[in-house]
Amino acid sequence: MDIGILVIGNELTSGMTQDTNSSFIARELHEYGWSVSAVMAVGDDRDAIKGGIDYFLGISDALIITGGLGPTADDMTTAAVAGAFDLDLYTDNAVLKRLKERFDRLDIPWTENNAKQAMFPEGAGIIDNPVGTACGFFLERSGRPVAVIPGVPAEARKLLTGGVIPLFREKLAYREHIAKRTIKIFGLTESGIDETLLHENLNIPGVSVGSYPRFPEIRLVVISRGEDRDSVEENLGAACKRIEEKLHRYIFGYDDDTMEGVVAAFLTDRGLTLSVAESCTGGLITDRLTDVPGSSVFLERGVVTYSNTSKVDLLGVPDSVIKEHGAVSEEAAVLMAEGVKRIAGTDIGLATTGIAGPTGGTEEKPVGTVFIALSTGEGTTCRRFLFRWDRRRIKEISSQIALNMLRRFLAGSNS
Amino acid sequence: MDIGILVIGNELTSGMTQDTNSSFIARELHEYGWSVSAVMAVGDDRDAIKGGIDYFLGISDALIITGGLGPTADDMTTAAVAGAFDLDLYTDNAVLKRLKERFDRLDIPWTENNAKQAMFPEGAGIIDNPVGTACGFFLERSGRPVAVIPGVPAEARKLLTGGVIPLFREKLAYREHIAKRTIKIFGLTESGIDETLLHENLNIPGVSVGSYPRFPEIRLVVISRGEDRDSVEENLGAACKRIEEKLHRYIFGYDDDTMEGVVAAFLTDRGLTLSVAESCTGGLITDRLTDVPGSSVFLERGVVTYSNTSKVDLLGVPDSVIKEHGAVSEEAAVLMAEGVKRIAGTDIGLATTGIAGPTGGTEEKPVGTVFIALSTGEGTTCRRFLFRWDRRRIKEISSQIALNMLRRFLAGSNS
Repeated sequence: MDIGILVIGNELTSGMTQDTNSSFIARELHEYGWSVSAVMAVGDDRDAIKGGIDYFLGISDALIITGGLGPTADDMTTAAVAGAFDLDLYTDNAVLKRLKERFDRLDIPWTENNAKQAMFPEGAGIIDNPVGTACGFFLERSGRPVAVIPGVPAEARKLLTGGVIPLFREKLAYREHIAKRTIKIFGLTESGIDETLLHENLNIPGVSVGSYPRFPEIRLVVISRGEDRDSVEENLGAACKRIEEKLHRYIFGYDDDTMEGVVAAFLTDRGLTLSVAESCTGGLITDRLTDVPGSSVFLERGVVTYSNTSKVDLLGVPDSVIKEHGAVSEEAAVLMAEGVKRIAGTDIGLATTGIAGPTGGTEEKPVGTVFIALSTGEGTTCRRFLFRWDRRRIKEISSQIALNMLRRFLAGSNS
Repeated sequence: MDIGILVIGNELTSGMTQDTNSSFIARELHEYGWSVSAVMAVGDDRDAIKGGIDYFLGISDALIITGGLGPTADDMTTAAVAGAFDLDLYTDNAVLKRLKERFDRLDIPWTENNAKQAMFPEGAGIIDNPVGTACGFFLERSGRPVAVIPGVPAEARKLLTGGVIPLFREKLAYREHIAKRTIKIFGLTESGIDETLLHENLNIPGVSVGSYPRFPEIRLVVISRGEDRDSVEENLGAACKRIEEKLHRYIFGYDDDTMEGVVAAFLTDRGLTLSVAESCTGGLITDRLTDVPGSSVFLERGVVTYSNTSKVDLLGVPDSVIKEHGAVSEEAAVLMAEGVKRIAGTDIGLATTGIAGPTGGTEEKPVGTVFIALSTGEGTTCRRFLFRWDRRRIKEISSQIALNMLRRFLAGSNS
């Protein structure tokens, strides 16, 4: 079963925007056992879109088109698709009404060009967009389904998984059962995972494992396929169990879990409170934690102590310690974690201090030096790191390690 | 002058690897004034490769193929290209000798499959690879140049800029000059921009304008093309000037500027200091500001006051105000901005408080209600918003608006 992916937008053929939709779509299709005949990107141009559709209809069993559904004049996907299929356009009044209501609710003035987003080719089924204004639609051409979804990544993802894939599973001959689990790993390199798992021949029928690095994590996608639903699930469970036995100390979550979500769940479940003192991570740790709904239950405060004065005032780190050891030091990190915990009156204090660069390094403490300290009822631990990435990546990996230290403490494991 | 880009690799059609070569190649070609007819990704499969080549030769004046030049069995680009052009393969002895020398030098044992990398279609010109083992090659088909380069990103880039582009400039009529500017917009919808600019017919020869939303911003890319370098630059300048006249209050930067970078530059230049009190944005404002190298010069502290206690302790917001008006209120926001400014002893204080959801809303203050306050030497202003997005987007748009309020104050404009 070969599916074509056609992505549309001048920003793609000009290289202005990196297309990430097609690789997401390809990955999803792949996981359902479908293969991708080709991926094509064309500009917002009727002839190019028609050419792409014709090409794919010659080599594919189905086609997914994404992009060019916006309200502006350069977006012409709907009209081009209608043209390629010799269909007229019509205005869907229910969609038009919802669009206008949305504009009203958001207090955005309605302009007539927006009505374009309520137009569809005659006979098309509409794929609702719960997260934006551009609905998708689908058609069939000699039994081949063609689905059209918006190009905004969050919307493309939503409409793919919520609309297109269920539709394709219904339309395309689909006998196989499939079960999937993503295991999220932190603290091990890809080749490290490879080495560890190679010695463990999974050898479970219908099960495949792929690793996908997504800085700073690695995702292991375990897929189990077969004709019998029960054994598919059973094989998936067996494969995951084997992987867990090998990699358990590096596994922080599954599927949609995030590091911050896992930490938040632990803190909430145990009724523990947290305060955070950030220097080099600049607020990223609390930013991540507050992405979790309900984080106000455990997060008492965060302080971003960029100045030495603020380290003294907000954390009670004595000026003498900063003078003697420097603001980037194990001594400062420990006192920051203990200070924020004591002053905020929380169960746990977490602190980072480091040199994110690109300047500010010394021979003793080069750019990339980071100290992370965790203070709990059981005492304070501090670790020193040296990272060789750019400023943003140093912030990201530092926040990840800080959250992971906290996660491992909460999981009651120093494994 | 339309150039096709064909990228080859199973890792691309399975979504295992994000293709970044095609967007780099497209950008480079674009900047030389060439346009891209389409970008296609196919797997390591002879038929798919031949299909792609045939398609491109029908719609393009030239073709760049990348990927599948490795020594392993799954790499078959060279053979597939030779097949598509009905050419035999030959071994280039000079390349073979260099390959063997390279293996010797690196002390890697030579295996016979590596000889594959010295094979080329009869009549092909070789494009040397100074950074790897896979040389590229080029052919012509009815006057249309076809260049084949490796897929490893560093090698693809090197052979593109050092080999393919000089070759294409020689082979293809190359008369055009090109100049480009990106204008970054915040606070106006895409259709709003469209409407505003539609009334202003730019009507400048060789100039095109495209709008690319990247939440929460919109980017306008202005491109000027023509035969005379001076008039290309002049037309670009004239176009940008007209756009600025129309949209100036929404323009926060150009090209690689970020909102946080622009704010940081203003603060640094003026020698002003900043402190930030964040509730609903949870540290995102300071996270963004500390992405800018040197932000320690102006950022004294940030506090993430998630608990009412922390608002009292760190900001001096009286408990009575929170009790009477709520932590999410204009009164609280104003006192947070003024409090952080006073206690940190900075020139400026910035504060956010709101309900990011998904729960916690009331009839009077529904989810998405956000107050943003800016306190400066000239007094304190506060604005109230109601956003209808998810938690993350509410944080992002709130941080953007807060930084933009600060930017406009620093730019000395309330326009």
